[in-house]
Amino acid sequence: MADSNTIRLRVFSLNCWGIRYLSKHCRERYAMIGELLNREEHDIVLLQEVWSEKDFLCLKRKLSSTHPHSHYFKSGVIGSGMATFSRHRIHDAFLYRYSLNGYPYMAHHGDWFGGKAVGMVKLNIGRLAAHVYVTHLHAEYCREKDSYLPHRVVQAWELQQFIRHTSSGADLVILAGDLNLHPQDLGNRLLRTYTGLRDSYTETAKFDGCEDGITFIADNPFINPKELCPFEKGIRIDYILYKGSGRVSIQCESLSTTKGSVPDHPFPYSDHEALSAELQLQTLTQQAGGDETRGKLAELVDIVTEARTEVKVGLYCAERMRYTAARTGVMGMALLLLELAIAAVPWLALGADQPFPRASFYLLGVLCFAILITTFLLYIFYTMEVKALQGAEDQMRLAVGSLQERLRGFPLAQPLNPLCRPLDRQDPCPLEPEE
Amino acid sequence: MADSNTIRLRVFSLNCWGIRYLSKHCRERYAMIGELLNREEHDIVLLQEVWSEKDFLCLKRKLSSTHPHSHYFKSGVIGSGMATFSRHRIHDAFLYRYSLNGYPYMAHHGDWFGGKAVGMVKLNIGRLAAHVYVTHLHAEYCREKDSYLPHRVVQAWELQQFIRHTSSGADLVILAGDLNLHPQDLGNRLLRTYTGLRDSYTETAKFDGCEDGITFIADNPFINPKELCPFEKGIRIDYILYKGSGRVSIQCESLSTTKGSVPDHPFPYSDHEALSAELQLQTLTQQAGGDETRGKLAELVDIVTEARTEVKVGLYCAERMRYTAARTGVMGMALLLLELAIAAVPWLALGADQPFPRASFYLLGVLCFAILITTFLLYIFYTMEVKALQGAEDQMRLAVGSLQERLRGFPLAQPLNPLCRPLDRQDPCPLEPEE
Repeated sequence: MADSNTIRLRVFSLNCWGIRYLSKHCRERYAMIGELLNREEHDIVLLQEVWSEKDFLCLKRKLSSTHPHSHYFKSGVIGSGMATFSRHRIHDAFLYRYSLNGYPYMAHHGDWFGGKAVGMVKLNIGRLAAHVYVTHLHAEYCREKDSYLPHRVVQAWELQQFIRHTSSGADLVILAGDLNLHPQDLGNRLLRTYTGLRDSYTETAKFDGCEDGITFIADNPFINPKELCPFEKGIRIDYILYKGSGRVSIQCESLSTTKGSVPDHPFPYSDHEALSAELQLQTLTQQAGGDETRGKLAELVDIVTEARTEVKVGLYCAERMRYTAARTGVMGMALLLLELAIAAVPWLALGADQPFPRASFYLLGVLCFAILITTFLLYIFYTMEVKALQGAEDQMRLAVGSLQERLRGFPLAQPLNPLCRPLDRQDPCPLEPEE
Repeated sequence: MADSNTIRLRVFSLNCWGIRYLSKHCRERYAMIGELLNREEHDIVLLQEVWSEKDFLCLKRKLSSTHPHSHYFKSGVIGSGMATFSRHRIHDAFLYRYSLNGYPYMAHHGDWFGGKAVGMVKLNIGRLAAHVYVTHLHAEYCREKDSYLPHRVVQAWELQQFIRHTSSGADLVILAGDLNLHPQDLGNRLLRTYTGLRDSYTETAKFDGCEDGITFIADNPFINPKELCPFEKGIRIDYILYKGSGRVSIQCESLSTTKGSVPDHPFPYSDHEALSAELQLQTLTQQAGGDETRGKLAELVDIVTEARTEVKVGLYCAERMRYTAARTGVMGMALLLLELAIAAVPWLALGADQPFPRASFYLLGVLCFAILITTFLLYIFYTMEVKALQGAEDQMRLAVGSLQERLRGFPLAQPLNPLCRPLDRQDPCPLEPEE
């Protein structure tokens, strides 16, 4: 079956839910994951939520013979939680931290402290340059009233940008991780349409796993099924995506997921299901042409416009929150003035008969201090959020303009400098000019 | 002289020192800069320290006829301060924020609030894809005792990584900005050696400007010459760097800098001198081969090793600072216990004769609160610093390993999976495999 131009590549992805002392059976589950990886010997293993570096090092020791190459991505206060193990040598690694990632004061959600990011490692598989990405986007805690939606859209935007800009030299691109996005969510469409990445679940020839490919399932004992409402059976939020290039075509031969329990073990590997894809790479002698169509461009314009609207909504909220912080800060300042007035009472020797209201004075001082500090920090934080949202919106506007220009069939470059003499341009500008 | 395959490209770079209400003659200087750009009509203008978006918009209006395309990079609390104007259509923009950028409590240095970053815009110049980068690295406030050195080295590391990973599809690469690095500083060597970018000052055929190409000069009236000590005349910290590709060769025909004063004006454009380079692009029909040599690889290993040592020193300091913050936090906790003990006095009705020490109680309360909040924030901040430094160090270790492997002439990829059949590999792995 496989000729000399065919390479088979097995990719594994799992959100490990590895919060030490908080996640249930964390240690035992890591031991099980280590066993599984040792036994299955996937080419590339991409893990998320490996929050403790100790757990990563423990896995690294365990996998030293099967997966001699590894990288742990560090970021934020706790870390990015992302790790990769590989049978092929990793010769470069790079990390991009998303500009937005929740709120530090939403400590119970914890996303902000995790420093969400996308990590890239570069591998050589045979003579093919593979760029492998792993990411974990901000969680969705409430689908009906999702205050993090603009953050997740900006993360998806930055993710597609990072992949697009760093993958132009790649023969193949693989992205795996917990996207916290349903298959038809805005961020997911943005990512797939812009990068051309294909979803292994919809593309696979053979599938073995949970119904509809769901990876966060009600049957998992670590999940409270109420949280999944209105999706009774579960949701599909973990993915393995891939694309080839002019030098290699990729087919997904099979995809499998775990199904909420592990034979001979009392509990599953994690609260998420693991994904395991078998890709077949076929090296091409001829460069394949671009597959850009007018329809695809138009779709992209629509999606980016939708994303821009979402970011604008987020911007409006962030600006309102910043305004509230500023107004509360002014209240703090007023309290400070009151405090000074109280302090002036004995100094001006007015009402010398009455005792100085010490208790009120110090309590008011503490209150002032707390309000001023908090509102100052919040103001700074919201300013950063506003800037990041504005930055993403600017980039989206630029992208829509550029896409519309292409859609109208105008040439991209119109040199105004008479010294710049354009060469004849007949071919339409490709969707990704760097490829 | 110029045949149909030759394009002339004029690039301008200036650190505008545009802090509203703080920088001297800010408004007048922006007006002068606008005039200059309008008159000179450079192809690409890369500005730094345009801190206020209003100033950017003002410049944008002024340059709407000469430079119809522009982008302002937003980041951090205040912004990245970076702006670009172009005569050629900008069809994509992307921003990478450095993971380390000074300390928030060093508010008088202000770098942390600025959100230092590297911005990229993609232009088409004729049929050539140009990736243009603008950046501004952390300032050096004291060369003898430079506590920010590890931060600047990590920034230079991330800058070279960002350029290397995002420029593989580019026909030409241009980087301009205030690097805050002397020509032979570690960060500068790291950047140039790894990316292959060439310094327009050392490469130019014709130079007109300050002695030794200095761009931060003692003769500038906005500069206190004492700050420059021991470099009496000034330092060269602003650069225009460039490189071509297999499709285009670049020569720097001329480079000029302003010289501390502007004819018919009472003051210069900024505290930095402006750079203006004229590049000649020659499109090639033949793909040029890689210019990797054993010597270059060995040099790169040395430089990365040096950078790694510097980062380790920074890591040691950050860990020590984090330890100090933690220890002070423990002191705060001890004070809190004391506070509780004081509160327990009247409750236990011990020493009922003596009045309750209200003043001490509340003062101690405020002190406790302040210490605990401050040490908590510092601990979080230093943890983020430690993670970022560790992350950079990990990547450097990986890079050194990969470089050494290449130096030994070993193949990069050693597939362990028998299903992966490597194709015959005879050509040595290029320095940048994605090119």
